This record gives sequence, C-alpha cells and structure tokens, in this order.
Amino acid sequence: MKDIYIADLTTFDEGKLFDGFFLLLSKQQRTTKTNKPYICLMMCDKTGQLEGRVWEPGDPRIAKDIDRGDVVKARGCVSRFDDRVQMKVDQIRKALPNEVDKTDLMPSTTYDVDGLWKQLTGFIESMTNPHLKGLLNAMLADQGLAQAYREAPAAKQLHHAWLGGLLEHVVSLLNLADRVVPNYPILDRDLVLTGVILHDIGKVRELSWDIGFEYTVEGTLLGHIQMGMALVEKTIEGLPGFPDRLKTLVLHMVLSHHGKLEFGSPKLPMIPEALVLNFLDDLDAKMQAVAGEFDKCAREGKPGDEMTGKVWALDQRQLLNTRLWLQGESK
Amino acid sequence: MKDIYIADLTTFDEGKLFDGFFLLLSKQQRTTKTNKPYICLMMCDKTGQLEGRVWEPGDPRIAKDIDRGDVVKARGCVSRFDDRVQMKVDQIRKALPNEVDKTDLMPSTTYDVDGLWKQLTGFIESMTNPHLKGLLNAMLADQGLAQAYREAPAAKQLHHAWLGGLLEHVVSLLNLADRVVPNYPILDRDLVLTGVILHDIGKVRELSWDIGFEYTVEGTLLGHIQMGMALVEKTIEGLPGFPDRLKTLVLHMVLSHHGKLEFGSPKLPMIPEALVLNFLDDLDAKMQAVAGEFDKCAREGKPGDEMTGKVWALDQRQLLNTRLWLQGESK
Amino acid sequence: MKDIYIADLTTFDEGKLFDGFFLLLSKQQRTTKTNKPYICLMMCDKTGQLEGRVWEPGDPRIAKDIDRGDVVKARGCVSRFDDRVQMKVDQIRKALPNEVDKTDLMPSTTYDVDGLWKQLTGFIESMTNPHLKGLLNAMLADQGLAQAYREAPAAKQLHHAWLGGLLEHVVSLLNLADRVVPNYPILDRDLVLTGVILHDIGKVRELSWDIGFEYTVEGTLLGHIQMGMALVEKTIEGLPGFPDRLKTLVLHMVLSHHGKLEFGSPKLPMIPEALVLNFLDDLDAKMQAVAGEFDKCAREGKPGDEMTGKVWALDQRQLLNTRLWLQGESK
Amino acid sequence: MKDIYIADLTTFDEGKLFDGFFLLLSKQQRTTKTNKPYICLMMCDKTGQLEGRVWEPGDPRIAKDIDRGDVVKARGCVSRFDDRVQMKVDQIRKALPNEVDKTDLMPSTTYDVDGLWKQLTGFIESMTNPHLKGLLNAMLADQGLAQAYREAPAAKQLHHAWLGGLLEHVVSLLNLADRVVPNYPILDRDLVLTGVILHDIGKVRELSWDIGFEYTVEGTLLGHIQMGMALVEKTIEGLPGFPDRLKTLVLHMVLSHHGKLEFGSPKLPMIPEALVLNFLDDLDAKMQAVAGEFDKCAREGKPGDEMTGKVWALDQRQLLNTRLWLQGESK
Amino acid sequence: MKDIYIADLTTFDEGKLFDGFFLLLSKQQRTTKTNKPYICLMMCDKTGQLEGRVWEPGDPRIAKDIDRGDVVKARGCVSRFDDRVQMKVDQIRKALPNEVDKTDLMPSTTYDVDGLWKQLTGFIESMTNPHLKGLLNAMLADQGLAQAYREAPAAKQLHHAWLGGLLEHVVSLLNLADRVVPNYPILDRDLVLTGVILHDIGKVRELSWDIGFEYTVEGTLLGHIQMGMALVEKTIEGLPGFPDRLKTLVLHMVLSHHGKLEFGSPKLPMIPEALVLNFLDDLDAKMQAVAGEFDKCAREGKPGDEMTGKVWALDQRQLLNTRLWLQGESK
Amino acid sequence: MKDIYIADLTTFDEGKLFDGFFLLLSKQQRTTKTNKPYICLMMCDKTGQLEGRVWEPGDPRIAKDIDRGDVVKARGCVSRFDDRVQMKVDQIRKALPNEVDKTDLMPSTTYDVDGLWKQLTGFIESMTNPHLKGLLNAMLADQGLAQAYREAPAAKQLHHAWLGGLLEHVVSLLNLADRVVPNYPILDRDLVLTGVILHDIGKVRELSWDIGFEYTVEGTLLGHIQMGMALVEKTIEGLPGFPDRLKTLVLHMVLSHHGKLEFGSPKLPMIPEALVLNFLDDLDAKMQAVAGEFDKCAREGKPGDEMTGKVWALDQRQLLNTRLWLQGESK
Repeated sequence: MKDIYIADLTTFDEGKLFDGFFLLLSKQQRTTKTNKPYICLMMCDKTGQLEGRVWEPGDPRIAKDIDRGDVVKARGCVSRFDDRVQMKVDQIRKALPNEVDKTDLMPSTTYDVDGLWKQLTGFIESMTNPHLKGLLNAMLADQGLAQAYREAPAAKQLHHAWLGGLLEHVVSLLNLADRVVPNYPILDRDLVLTGVILHDIGKVRELSWDIGFEYTVEGTLLGHIQMGMALVEKTIEGLPGFPDRLKTLVLHMVLSHHGKLEFGSPKLPMIPEALVLNFLDDLDAKMQAVAGEFDKCAREGKPGDEMTGKVWALDQRQLLNTRLWLQGESK
Repeated sequence: MKDIYIADLTTFDEGKLFDGFFLLLSKQQRTTKTNKPYICLMMCDKTGQLEGRVWEPGDPRIAKDIDRGDVVKARGCVSRFDDRVQMKVDQIRKALPNEVDKTDLMPSTTYDVDGLWKQLTGFIESMTNPHLKGLLNAMLADQGLAQAYREAPAAKQLHHAWLGGLLEHVVSLLNLADRVVPNYPILDRDLVLTGVILHDIGKVRELSWDIGFEYTVEGTLLGHIQMGMALVEKTIEGLPGFPDRLKTLVLHMVLSHHGKLEFGSPKLPMIPEALVLNFLDDLDAKMQAVAGEFDKCAREGKPGDEMTGKVWALDQRQLLNTRLWLQGESK
Repeated sequence: MKDIYIADLTTFDEGKLFDGFFLLLSKQQRTTKTNKPYICLMMCDKTGQLEGRVWEPGDPRIAKDIDRGDVVKARGCVSRFDDRVQMKVDQIRKALPNEVDKTDLMPSTTYDVDGLWKQLTGFIESMTNPHLKGLLNAMLADQGLAQAYREAPAAKQLHHAWLGGLLEHVVSLLNLADRVVPNYPILDRDLVLTGVILHDIGKVRELSWDIGFEYTVEGTLLGHIQMGMALVEKTIEGLPGFPDRLKTLVLHMVLSHHGKLEFGSPKLPMIPEALVLNFLDDLDAKMQAVAGEFDKCAREGKPGDEMTGKVWALDQRQLLNTRLWLQGESK
Repeated sequence: MKDIYIADLTTFDEGKLFDGFFLLLSKQQRTTKTNKPYICLMMCDKTGQLEGRVWEPGDPRIAKDIDRGDVVKARGCVSRFDDRVQMKVDQIRKALPNEVDKTDLMPSTTYDVDGLWKQLTGFIESMTNPHLKGLLNAMLADQGLAQAYREAPAAKQLHHAWLGGLLEHVVSLLNLADRVVPNYPILDRDLVLTGVILHDIGKVRELSWDIGFEYTVEGTLLGHIQMGMALVEKTIEGLPGFPDRLKTLVLHMVLSHHGKLEFGSPKLPMIPEALVLNFLDDLDAKMQAVAGEFDKCAREGKPGDEMTGKVWALDQRQLLNTRLWLQGESK
Repeated sequence: MKDIYIADLTTFDEGKLFDGFFLLLSKQQRTTKTNKPYICLMMCDKTGQLEGRVWEPGDPRIAKDIDRGDVVKARGCVSRFDDRVQMKVDQIRKALPNEVDKTDLMPSTTYDVDGLWKQLTGFIESMTNPHLKGLLNAMLADQGLAQAYREAPAAKQLHHAWLGGLLEHVVSLLNLADRVVPNYPILDRDLVLTGVILHDIGKVRELSWDIGFEYTVEGTLLGHIQMGMALVEKTIEGLPGFPDRLKTLVLHMVLSHHGKLEFGSPKLPMIPEALVLNFLDDLDAKMQAVAGEFDKCAREGKPGDEMTGKVWALDQRQLLNTRLWLQGESK
Repeated sequence: MKDIYIADLTTFDEGKLFDGFFLLLSKQQRTTKTNKPYICLMMCDKTGQLEGRVWEPGDPRIAKDIDRGDVVKARGCVSRFDDRVQMKVDQIRKALPNEVDKTDLMPSTTYDVDGLWKQLTGFIESMTNPHLKGLLNAMLADQGLAQAYREAPAAKQLHHAWLGGLLEHVVSLLNLADRVVPNYPILDRDLVLTGVILHDIGKVRELSWDIGFEYTVEGTLLGHIQMGMALVEKTIEGLPGFPDRLKTLVLHMVLSHHGKLEFGSPKLPMIPEALVLNFLDDLDAKMQAVAGEFDKCAREGKPGDEMTGKVWALDQRQLLNTRLWLQGESK
C-alpha cells in the first residue's frame, strides 16, 4: 500500500520532502527560455493528478527508461508558485512488480468488487427464462470479458468514472429495477434485468483504463452501444436455439437505452421493458450526480443553507441539500 | 343502473330501437337546406359520446326544457349513414333525480374509490413529520376539496381522463414512490409522499367535470400548478408553526414537478425529492399510456405480432407488446 | 404481361368492364348498414393501388381461397362515386403460376437490373484494396443476399420506393462518387466505394417487399443501419486476415452515413470518406426528389411557369423548373 | 459622504496610501505557502468591488469583530501585481452608525427615488377601476413592502442591477405603456398599469440586497413570478368584494409576463393586456441595454464608427451607435 | 355598386335565384361520372369566395370567352348539399367596363385610402432630415409605385390581407412609432419613420392582387425584403449626395425588420431604430390578430365567457376577451 | 523579400537580436504601474502576429509618425516571460516603398493567382448562354472589382482566410461543379457556374484586408449576400436585353446559397442549380477544413493513430486521418 497520496501533497508547504508511487500519464521533453532542457511529467494516483518537473535530466538518479503508462517511484520536494503546486523530482525509477497495488493508482469503487459481482450473479440466478439466463452466463463465462466488466469505469468523466464503476452502476440499477418491476404487471422481469446487465457492456471496449481513462479510437468511431450489440450478437450466435425474436428484443434494449436520437440511440424504446430501462438508467445516474455533489460540498465545507455549484449532469442546475437546509431552520 | 350504453348503440343496425339515459353535452337549433328546423344533440355516457337529431322539434314528446348539462331519457332508433352512426330521437325528457347513477354517465375509474382513498390516507398515516402530516390532513379535512379530489379526472384527454382518475394516478404513484425511496438514502420519504399527494391537486380547479371534462377559463389562464400552489399556501397559512423552509420545499415540489420549463414548470427540480417526483410522475404516465395502448389493441383485435398505432403520449412512437410477440414465436 | 393497369382503370367511365391481374394487399369482411355482408379488397399493380368491392360474396365465381399476398385475376366494372373510383368485382380467383410477371404487380425500377448489377460489379473490379474487394465479393457471393440486393426498394415511400430501387440508388451514387473523389486527394477511393455499396445494405432486412413495401418488426426495432452493420461484421468474421482498423472504418461509414444524431446515425462522420458519403447520399436523394417532382408536374400537365407543390423530401419546399420557366420567357 | 471610491483606487500607483469606507462582502482566513496566516477581504462600494489582504492579522489595529455585511473603515496602500490591483490593509474597524451613507456602498439609481415614487402613485391616482386601485393602494400601504419596492434592484446582474432599479424600471414602463395604450382601443388601461406595477413585485423576495445583490434560496427555488403572485393573492384575500375574474386576470398578467415557457412563464399571455405588458417589458429592457452599452463605449473612449462589443441581453449581438456613426460621415 | 354579395348567398335556401357580379378566380372543364361535361368556376367578391357549376356548357347564354381574371355577371340559383353551398349557374357573361366597382370584388380596407395616404404624407412632411425626406418623396413620386402602395395587401393571408392593407398597416405603425419614439432619446425619429414606411415596400412586387392575392414567382424566389431593398437602392442611386452611411442604415432597417434569421431577416437589428421597428411591427401585427379574432367571435355569436379559437398568428394560442369576460361577472 | 518571419521569432531564445519588416496592426500608449509611459505595438506578417513593446518612447530611433496600417522596419531582441514571447523594440521606422513585398505581410494563397484567374476565365469562356457570359465578363471588366476579387480572403477566420482565398475557393468549386453537373441532366451548367462565380462576390465589400482581415461596418450591417446581390443587380441594369427571369434566377442563387434561414439565406434553394450550389459550397468548405486540420496535426507532430483536436467548422467534431491510421496498423 502507498503511504503518500497526491491529495496529501497538495497540502504540503513549499519545500517539504516526499517519496511515493505514481502512475506516469505523460512525459515531455522541454527547454527553458535559456535553452536548458528539463522534463515535464504528469503523474496520478487514486486521489488525483499532479505535475512534476525534473530540472536535472542528466542526473543518474533519473531513470531513462520510464515512459507513459509506467508505475514509478519518485522522490523530491513540493514546490508552490502562486496557487499552483508542483513536484520537484530529484529521483525517479520504475516501480518493481508488486511494489504497489495498481488499484491505488487510479480512482476505484469504494464497494467490494466481489460483493458486487455476487449480487450480479445472484440476480442472474433468480431469472427463469433459460435463454436469457444462458446468454448472460455465456457472456460472463468469457474470462477476459468478465474481468473487464469488473474493472471498467462507467465513464471517462461524470458518473461512476472510476475502476469498477460499470459494475457498481449496474448493480445499483439491478436493485432499483427489481423494486420497480412488480409495480407494472406488463413488464417481463427477466428481460428488464438482462437489459440492465447488458446495456453498457460495450464500455469495456469503448474505454481504456490502463493509463488513466481514455476513449479508444474504435470507441470514438463506433460507440459503446454499437460495440455492446456486436458482443451480444456474437455470443447469441454461439447459443443454438436462441429465439430470433428474443434476440431482437435484447438488441433493441441495448440500442435504445439512451432514450433519444440526440443522445445517441438511433431507435427510441418501443417495448415497455426498454422504456423502463431508459428511465431507471437516467434516474440512477442523476441521483448519483446529486449525491456526489452533496458529498463534494461536505468535503469543501460549504454551509448547508446555500445552493450547490452548478451540476454538469443536471444541465448546469444548482441543487439544495434538503436535509441540511431544514436542519438549519430548526436550529 | 343503465341498460343501454352508447358503445352498444354503435353496433346496432339501421333502424333498431333504443331507450336510455344520457348526459346532454350540447344542444343546437339548426335548419335543413329546405329551411326545416331540427335540433342537434350531443349526448354521452361512460362508454362514449354520440350525436342525436330531433327531426320533429314541435312534437309534444320532445321536452322544451332540456339543456346542456341535463341528464336526459331519450327514445328513438339508430340511423347509419356511410360509417357514421346517429340517434334519431323521437322522445326526450329530463331524467328524474336518482333515475340514473351519475357515474354511469361519464367514464370513471375501474378501481373502488373508497379503497383508493383508504390507501391514500394510509400513506399519510405512515408519515412521521408532524408538519407535513398536519398539512395533508388539513387539506383533506376540507370536505369540498376532499370530494373534488375523489372525483376529479387527471386530465381532459390523455392519461387517466376519467372520474377518479386523479386519485387513481396519485395512489399508483404513492406505491411506486414507496418502492423507490428506500433505494436512495438521501431522500426524505415524507417530503416525497407529500409531493406525490399534492403535485396535481390544482387539477380540481383547472378542470370541470360536471358536463364532460373541460378546462375552466381560470384553469386555462393560470394552470393547475399555480392553482395548486395557491391552495397549499392558503392551507399552510392556517397552520401555526409550519416551518417557512419546509413550506418553500413543498411549494417547490409542486412548482417543479413537470421537470422542464417548456412543459410548464418555471423552475427545474432542485432538491432530490423533486427530482424523483418528476421522474416517477413521468414514468407512471408513460407506463399507463403503454398499458392503455395494449388494451386498445386487444379490444380492436389487432394481431400480437404487429406494432401498435402511434401513441400520442410517447411522441407518436409505435410500440410492441413484448409478451404477445414472443408468444407468436414459440407457437 | 398485363393488359390493363390500375392507372388505366382510374380513367374509365362508370360501368366500364375490365379484366386483369393484381396483387391482393388486404381482404376484409364487412356488412352494410342493412347487415348484408360484403368483401372489401385492396389490390395493386406496378401503377398504383385501388379498392375493390365484392357485393355477392356467395357467388361461386368468387374464389374463397384468395388471401392477402395472392396474385389474383379479377373481372368486374368500374364504379365512380364523387371523385372516388372503385372496382365492382364480379369474378375473382388466384392467378396461375406464370400467368403474370411479378414485376408487373409492384412498382419497379425503369433501369435494366442486370445492367445495374454489371455496373456495380464493375466498380468492385476497379478497386485495388484486396481486403475491401474481398469483403464485397464475399457479401455478394451469398446468393440470397445478392438476390435481395437486386430486388429491394430503397425505402417504403419517398425516394427510390420501388423494386430495384436500392440497387438503382447505389449505382447512381457510385457514379457520382467516382466523379467527386479525384477532386480530393485525401480520399481513399476504395473506402468511399465500399461505403457506397454497403451503407444501405441493411434495408434488405429492414423492409419486406413480398406484398407491398412494409417495415418488418425487426426493422422497426433495430433499423437498417444496425442490421447492415451486423451483416458486414458477420461477413468480415469469415474473412481471415481482414485488418481490425479497416473493419472499424467500414463499420463507421455505415454507422455514420445519415450524418446527424437526429437522423438516426449515433455517430457523426469522423473520417473524410464518411463525410463525403453522407454528402453525396443526401445530394443524390434530393436531386432524385427534384427530378421526380418535375416529372410528376409534367404528367399532371402543370404549367411551367408555376412553382411545384410542396416537396416532402425537401422540407415542404416548393420548387421551380428552371428550364421550363426560362422557356416561358423567351417565347 | 465618502471621499475615496474603489473606482479611484484602481487608478492608483503601487504603494499609494488610502483611507475609506467600504461594505465587507466576505472574509476568509488563509495561509501562505509557508504557513503564515493572512486574511482575505472582499469589499465594495457603489463604484465596484476590490480584494484586500491583511498580512498581519494579529496587529491590534485590525479589528477582530468585523464580519460579512459590516460597513468598515479601512486604511492601507494599493498593491499592483501584473494587471491586478489589491488593497494592502494595515488598519480596519467597523464604521460608526451614520459615519457613511449606505447608498454610497452599493450601486444605486441615478434618479430621485421620491420623484419616481410620486410618478408611480400618480399613475395609481389616475386609474378609475376601484378594485385595481384598491389593490395597489393596499399593497403599497404595507410599509415593509413599500420600502422594499423603493430599494430593490431589478436584477442581480444585467438590466437595472442597482438599488432602486425595480422602481426605475417600473416607472419607465408606466410612461411607455401610457403612450401605447391609447393606440389600441381594446386595451383596458387600468389593467395594463396594474400589470406593470405588479409584474416584478416578487423580486423584493427573490433578491436580497443587504450585502451585494444575491438570490435568496427561496427565490432560487420559487422565482419572483410565483412569489409575486403569492403576495398579490394574499393582499386580494384581505379585500372584500374583489371580483374573482379580475383577480384571475391580474394573476394571469404576473404569471405570463415573461411571454414564453422557456423564459419561465408557465402560461403565455392570453389577454391583450398581458400581451402588451410582455412586449413593452421586453422592449424597455432591450432599449435600456442598448443605451447602457453606448454609455459604456463612451466611457471607454471607443470610436463612434465601430460596432460595440457583444451585448449579452441582445443575444451577443454587436450594436452600432446611429448618431455617432452618421456624425462621422458628415465631418 | 353590387347588390348581392357572396356572404349573402351562403345564407340562401336551396333553389333561391340570384344575379350578381363576381371576379372569376379559376375555370376548369370537367366531366361527370357518366362522361357529361360541365364547368367548374371559382368566383369571389369582397365578402368571400364560392364555387359555381355550369351544367349546360353548350347553352348560348353561357359565354365562351370568359376566363380566369375576368369580372363576370352570373345568374342562377343556390344549391346546397350537406353543409356545402354552391351556385348553379344558368347564364354568365363578361361584365362591361364600369358596370361594377373593382373594390367590390376583393376584400379591401375599411378605412378611407385617401385619408390614410394623407396621414402618410403628413408624417413625411413632419420629418427634418432632407435626405430621408427626399428619398421618401422620390419613391412616392413614381406614380406606378405610389398606386401599388395604395392598393397592395399586406399579406396573402393572415394580417391585413385585403386591398389597401399595406397602407393601413404602415399608417397604424407610424402612429404607434410616433408615440413610442419620444420615450427613448437615443432614437432618430426620421430614421424610425423611414423604416416604417419602407420596411414592407417590396410587397408591391412580392404579391399580385389582380385576381385574388397570390405570390408572384419572383416574390417566392426573392422575397419582399430583397425586392424592397432593390427598390430603395435604385431610388437612392438617382439621388445625388445621398450619404453612403445613411443609405446603409436605411437598407439595414429593411433587411433586419423581421428580427430573426429564422423569420427571414439575414441580419438582426443592430441599431436602436431597427430594434424598435422590429418590436413595433410585431406588436402591431399581433394586436391586429387579437382584435380580428374578437371581431370574428362577435360575428359568430360566441359567448363572451369562453376562450376564442386557436389563433394562428399567436402560435395557436387561445385568447380571452377581457372586457366581455369581466362584464359577464358584474352582471 | 523578408529575411525574418514572426514564426521564426517565436522559436528564438531570450535576448536574441532581430531586424525585420512587419505590418503594424495597432499602436497604444500605456503607462507602467510606476507611471512610466511605454508603447504597445501589435505587428504581423504572413506567418502570424506578435506583440512588441517600446520601453523608451523618447529615443530618437523610435519614429513618432508610425501608425496603424503602416509597414514598419523594427529592430530589437526577443523577450520571453512564462510561455509568452514578445519583441523588445529598440528602433522602429516606416518602411520605404518597395522595401518589402506586401504579400509577405499577410497570409496569402499558396496557389499562383494568375493561374487561378486563368482557370476562372477559362470556365467563363466555356459557357454558351450569351447573357450569363456577358454578365460575368461585364463584372470582371470592372478593374477595381476584378482586382478585389483576386485579392479578397474568403473569410475573416475559418476557411480560406488568406489573401486570394476567395478566388482559390471559387476555382476549387468550379472544378467540383464541372465534375458533378454531368451526373444530373436537369442541371443548366451555365447557371451553376454563374452561381459559383458570383455567390460570394459580396465578400469584396463585406471584408477589408488592408490591415489584417476585418468586417467593414457596412458588411456587418448588410452581409455579403445582400452586397453581392446589389453588385449583380447594378451590373445587369447596364446590360440591355438581359432577360428578367434569368436575372431573378441568378439573384436567387446568390440569395439562397447558404441553404438555411438560420445560416443567413432568407430563401431556401428552390431551383436545382441553387440546391447543387449550396451542397457543393458546403462540401468544399468542409473538405478544406478536414485537409487543413490534418496539415495542422502534421505540423504539430501529432501521432497518426489519434483523433485530431475539435474542428470548429465541423461542429466541434474530432476527426481521424484514415491514411495514417491504416498505415499504423500495417506496420
């Protein structure tokens, strides 16, 4: 485990020494105005990212072989200029395998991934339609895919933008869907749950999360909806006897889950299960944005009787923390 | 109870006699091309509406004193022209009080109103915030308001456009909200339930349902959101000690429940409870539209492997009945 | 070949006899106001569609076994009411196999299909990239797919809504693209041509053209873009060594060819070839709509110095026939 | 009266001493990179706002009891860094009551408030409808409300964002309306004037102007339209015999005065008086924006033959000063 | 003067004889179902338009030489079918010159055109800028243009769609502008008045009003804004010494008077005079639509306590007649 | 020819001396914080623009008579602060006539202007319609207009924003149009070519390019579409016998070439030639933006397997360089 995190460094005074492990996001050669070369490094861990500068690139303690994507061990001191904090790096080398836990180097879910996975498979177990159950089991039987599903963030930025975020989002939605489905007898529970589990599965291809969170070029050109449909379609082709119409409905749920053409779904939800999936997905993402904003205000010590900042995921709306505001009155 | 309904008449052959009770929606004097006067009547009951014509207005069996809004007893025969059906009315008079049950004359909920009311008051009982509970009880203690709440349709057309429709919609939403709230710990359950019960209460003023369903002029000029807020605000003023901030939040939920400026809410939901109210209200209305469309297709004998007609409440989208379509394959 | 076409019938006087072959689009049992049963038939051929009525369903000359989708031989006389023309059908039976050419029964391209196909394959021959050439040849080697490609209309209504319309539209686009490509050195000609040939291939699944032109349920739920991508993806999987990146680009061209999210392309064109494909596809469809409108005006005898009617495919714009209008002046 | 204004300070050279009265908008404890504590103060007066820094918080000449909202007397010197000007504060204490005129501390109208008020009451006197006159007089008889009406800005930023701005805007509109009404005989003058006087009255609750101009939380959640309607409605309830329909029309004018759903009016103007109110309110705001931009250009010495900067209130449009541009030619 | 108007005919009983003058809008040869030829005529006068049918085209009393655009004298009787009224024409011939006043044959202004013209020239007289005065006088000195200005409708349908409508609209706007201008000292009165007089002058080319009101082909292709600018520009070229900048401003006012790109003004108003012109033009058109709708309701006997029908010029809004509705209460 | 370009200076180290010719875009007197006067100069040449500062304005080597728009000779050294580069100017004077080539001082086309002009006139020669040919020759016979056509940029920023850009854009479009026209027999080639040559001709008035590229005030108020139409209309008036209808069509092509009301064309293309002009103009501009972005990435050394930056002219879309990306795979 790491001892020093970037969030700690940003509170250090000028000149204070540090020694820690980071993920190297980028490395650039530059020269000063007086033509002296130096190296500019962008490093991150699970608490954030920070720029570092190597002023003596020729120093033997500065490893030559480090590159974008490496986990590194760096030593130096904190430098402050105006309100900006930087690391002045005096020594740096590649970390040894196992010297540091990779989950310390990028933001990741605060839930236990095994626990989430158990919930997911529990929901699959509870289904009764053999074809849908078979489809889901076949997909998760692909070790690479299952591992990616456990690791993938749900987004580059915005909601659930952390390792394990996709799984966390899906499990939250499964629980919500399981509550809502009994209210509407026309809904086919197995189909709704299948839609929940598969709707974002293309994100395991659309995003890469080895070195920070990035869209792959393929992901940019095709999008996770198309990539997810291709994954599902290919798996179904390996399942003899999977009914054609059921396949169409599953694909339709993935295709339509953004709910509007301008949000990237080329077809609107046309079956009740797809309609519910779109609503719940949207509600869950927004409630997550609300809760996240309230947490952020709490961390920043904002008083409870003020509106929050503008929230991107809610059309730049400001929010009010009901509980804190009402408490302020009763005092 | 009525014996003959308008829905029956429309299946009658030319010339078949009938004898029944109807609500008179309008009455107009007209003349034929050859200048002969006749009377054109629009009549309805809970199964629909139909035009009737009195060709002998001077006949003593045609009561002179009938007018828009009267319940009438009419006798005559069915007349068909092209695909249009009309009533040829030979006798007509005002109905006696109690000769017919008013709920037979306009479409009304298929649920038991007392049962719905019991659910509603049960939810109020389950609340813990004394101010909100007090507010709801004070509003329902107004006999006129409570009676209107039991009777009002939820809309002139579209979703829940029948007597008792408002109550039916609210109770459906209460059950849905009660399921969803536990999924999000930041939600104040009492506030969500209060919002559900009050969000559409202005409809008891916006609409009139004595003679068909109509918007009142006041309702057209001010809308149910504003009318509902005025009702709530006035009631709160009679409740000493009702906290100012809590009042603001209740009003905000009513004000923002349509969710978008272009849908008539001048403020967007800015507290989590208002956000959830808007989502669930929208979801419930849409699921009701889906179920209603499926029922309509079943009544019309449409085959299960076709898309439905275009559904107004879902942006003219066509839908597919999942269950029927899948059954069609397994056969 | 047929002797009498629906377009001819609509000019007949009341009571004139006819005898011809038609495609039966629908058949409904009905009763008159006086409860007499009759049969309502919708029939079409390549010149249009017309309603027919059988007033004596029990007549032995009225075959019982005819149904939606059958080619029939009908005899009767023309009936006119107001401005509506109908067929009064006295005899009807299924046509014998080969009694009539199916292409006479639905609108179809005025071009020679074999000639169009030769142009198409000629363009494929002219390509140099072995992978793209291989992909196209593999797709057209599937006999069912090739046959469907030759037959499919390009739309249910609007542009190229006739048998062979897809092929006609593609060949027109190939010629246009072949002219434009040399103007822009950054374009990869083979990629553009591949995009042209494959962009609408999903229409062979989205539409059915056995009995009139209809969207299939699968087509309504998934759309031709998605269906086309699935076809392409599956074919590529059977081609060993097809480069991954090239596959992504081909799929991107199909996915993005509608050019805007609100037109059903979930991704905008992001490579120059996709941009050009979207422009030329749009231009060709609009030029076809212009030419079609001018033809229609000529058929209807509209004077050349007036604006045309409103053209749906051009946002309800009215057009002016340059040539005719200028001729009007010089006279 | 104050001697030194913030607008003066911004022109001072580095190190020049000052001594003046300001309103304290915020006060924050901070530390330097070397962990030395200092205080950051935001201060304003009617000419603008400026940041001040106290580098020796322990100095006995730095009062401990000053806080957000206090009027303070501060002494120090001007500090310039890059293009930013700051106050280096050496002494600071609360101002004594009456040591300074509060209207010097925030931007306020350049008109005489008593004169504006007299015009307003003069217009009320000129009205003939006793109910509307009674309503307006009843509202202004509330001393708190009348005082707030005299002080309130019309906005936080944008048009009339200064003390007395609401009153100034209303009186300008009254004069404009009084000119326009005679042109349209269908208009009820008293109703138009009532609408002008009440349309923005909710701003006395929506905004706070004690310490700068801010939206209250209640104002953010409900908006001035709703708050104004509640004020009007409550006053009318205290007026026996006020006609119901007249009340509905007055409320409708307030409700609809923004003219579009997307501008926050949930109902469009549906009576001619409301239509005119919306037009004139919009015109007056825009003409004020034009005049304001021309003044700003004059102050900044912009030449008269150039377009102005982009004007926010006119959709980022650039304007041209007709008079100056024409003068430029005749020279 | 005419004795019988089309508005009268529509109230006639079946078979009643008439004899009157009309303008022939169109003439079409047709045949009945039994192949008998007849002629269908569309005729109008200032009160409306009505279809006539000549069942005996060979009758010598039916003139052969009548054609679209002729003023005709027709005799026959009224025929009613369902709710449709037609003229059965037994005799028809061209009217003699001066047998009828052309202003009786198309809807025209209810104002005295000479009086309106006097107001217009009076406003020009009141101006002080010699260049603008010279421009206006030069334009009106063109006899053809002046005559067209007096006759032209302001639109094909919608507001001021009658002979003299353009002049009536301009004079109404002049009076309105004259009231509003003094409220804003930055406005140049002469420029505003010039803009009012010239803004719609292109309509004398865009529309034709010889035979009903129609857009010319040139008007459809170029629009009245462009055509008006060409007229103004050409006139200015004949005025030596007209300042370039002033010309630009006058053209800018014409160009921008629709106020938005999507309303056909390619530039937004960028000088205060253009801004005011756009507002007042829009306000006047809408107030005219309101007054027109109230008149229509009065003619149709609609009760005063109802909303009007949907008004096209006000985005399909329903309106309420303030005066009538309030009267309804006080009764 | 110049020796030193601004693009060179930005790579210089601190303090390095230079000596060069520049165009003076602006000159402002300022004072330092300590009240010392200095001069701030903005200078450009064809490779970019850079700020210079004169710290000793009284030095006799600093010419007093230089002003905005002058070509100057400046001597000094490079100064770097953070990442910003400036010129410290020690000597400056007006350049002598012919000391420097003006085309070195602003960005200009990389094509040979005479060659482009020859292509343009060649296309005119190839036309057969004598009126259109006469119109084009008459316009280019105006020496001032022809010279402006050769020099004008096609835009202030964005596509073809360099001297000669208009001509370059038109010639590119002529070649494209010449390829596309034969594909559509309904097109009148001469009309299309005329539209291409004249569509943007108003830019010679809308823009000024003496001192940088700016919109003229007239250009801002009227736009190049209107200015171009006025030029064309005036020329046609000097051509006896030019057919009216042909004139209308030419004007319509200029007027409608932006294709949408919201893009500033008050009429949509309504003849096929105008439709094609709008499409090809748009396609050519976008292909130019794509090629330009790829060039920029190449200059900046961006790797070929990444998406480009966001491209303004393509709705902020990111692009991918097909060729480079595919090459990356085959390696």
